[in-house]
Amino acid sequence: MQMDYTAEREKIVNKLAQKVKGEKFDHSLGVEQTALALARRYGADREKAGLAGLLHDYTKQMDNVAMAEKYGIPYLTEKTLHGHTAAALLKEKGYVTDEEVLGAIRWHTTGRAGMSLLEKIVFIADYVEPNRDFPGVELARELAFADIDKAVLLVLKTTIGHVVKNKGLIDTDSVEAYNDYRRLFPGEEI
Amino acid sequence: MQMDYTAEREKIVNKLAQKVKGEKFDHSLGVEQTALALARRYGADREKAGLAGLLHDYTKQMDNVAMAEKYGIPYLTEKTLHGHTAAALLKEKGYVTDEEVLGAIRWHTTGRAGMSLLEKIVFIADYVEPNRDFPGVELARELAFADIDKAVLLVLKTTIGHVVKNKGLIDTDSVEAYNDYRRLFPGEEI
Repeated sequence: MQMDYTAEREKIVNKLAQKVKGEKFDHSLGVEQTALALARRYGADREKAGLAGLLHDYTKQMDNVAMAEKYGIPYLTEKTLHGHTAAALLKEKGYVTDEEVLGAIRWHTTGRAGMSLLEKIVFIADYVEPNRDFPGVELARELAFADIDKAVLLVLKTTIGHVVKNKGLIDTDSVEAYNDYRRLFPGEEI
Repeated sequence: MQMDYTAEREKIVNKLAQKVKGEKFDHSLGVEQTALALARRYGADREKAGLAGLLHDYTKQMDNVAMAEKYGIPYLTEKTLHGHTAAALLKEKGYVTDEEVLGAIRWHTTGRAGMSLLEKIVFIADYVEPNRDFPGVELARELAFADIDKAVLLVLKTTIGHVVKNKGLIDTDSVEAYNDYRRLFPGEEI
């Protein structure tokens, strides 16, 4: 049985605290709260949003390369792996069985083309939760509650731009997501 | 029989002049000459480089969307289509039958992961031929003759950066090519 977010939130948070330490723990609570707020704003399932937000970084501090091998997850860079390993581990343990919640966890770092509303919510919450502080976060935070699709486009555009500038590898799921959302807003100032 | 570059160059140029007009015609001759120079520099087949350089934009001024439908070529944007339609048309007419030359024509705009030397030569020649004049072309021109792989990485990085900045759609072949060449020069100042 999947963990019951409303009835067992305290137990879930304690479990999370054993795996995710320090700032990343605070960040997880921040994403949970932001995901709840966005779910209310856009009429998504709040239980699912809270659960996915809370657990999205569950494996962030584990050995993701070893887990990727165990679960047979292909990857381009280690950095984008933890969403996939978290979904695989949480499913295996039976903590999360709902495919929508698993999808939101799986794709929270890269995004993908054709994201569900829940996936968009966790993707954006991860970027704009209250502990985040970097140039441009205010605009993304504002857009998140004004038009989530525009916020997704902004985050993807910014992320891909940074990767290119910083000599990193570009995730092709992110590129397909970017093209998907750019098509919604052709030529718009985002 | 494929057109013979050395024996029939004049005939090929006349044929090209009927399809490609104005600055694009001059550009085609510029790519031809630059491809020949790069082929000499890197020890590639000069006949193939000259032929591919000359004909790379053969369909640039035709109805590429109609041709893409005719030849069943999938595409993201019209802009990157002409390499594919040129390869298809030149092959159909029997003007070019050599698969290496066709590949260099097909991928000259987007690049792709695992490019052949000839493909890299035409890709780069298209960007740095003498008629090209834009910020950064000098560095690309220099790199082209110093280290063609670094030049390819620079051009891909610049192109993807521009597309993102100018609110365009990002070609996934270019992204896979970029990742391919970035892996050759991790963290390097390109």
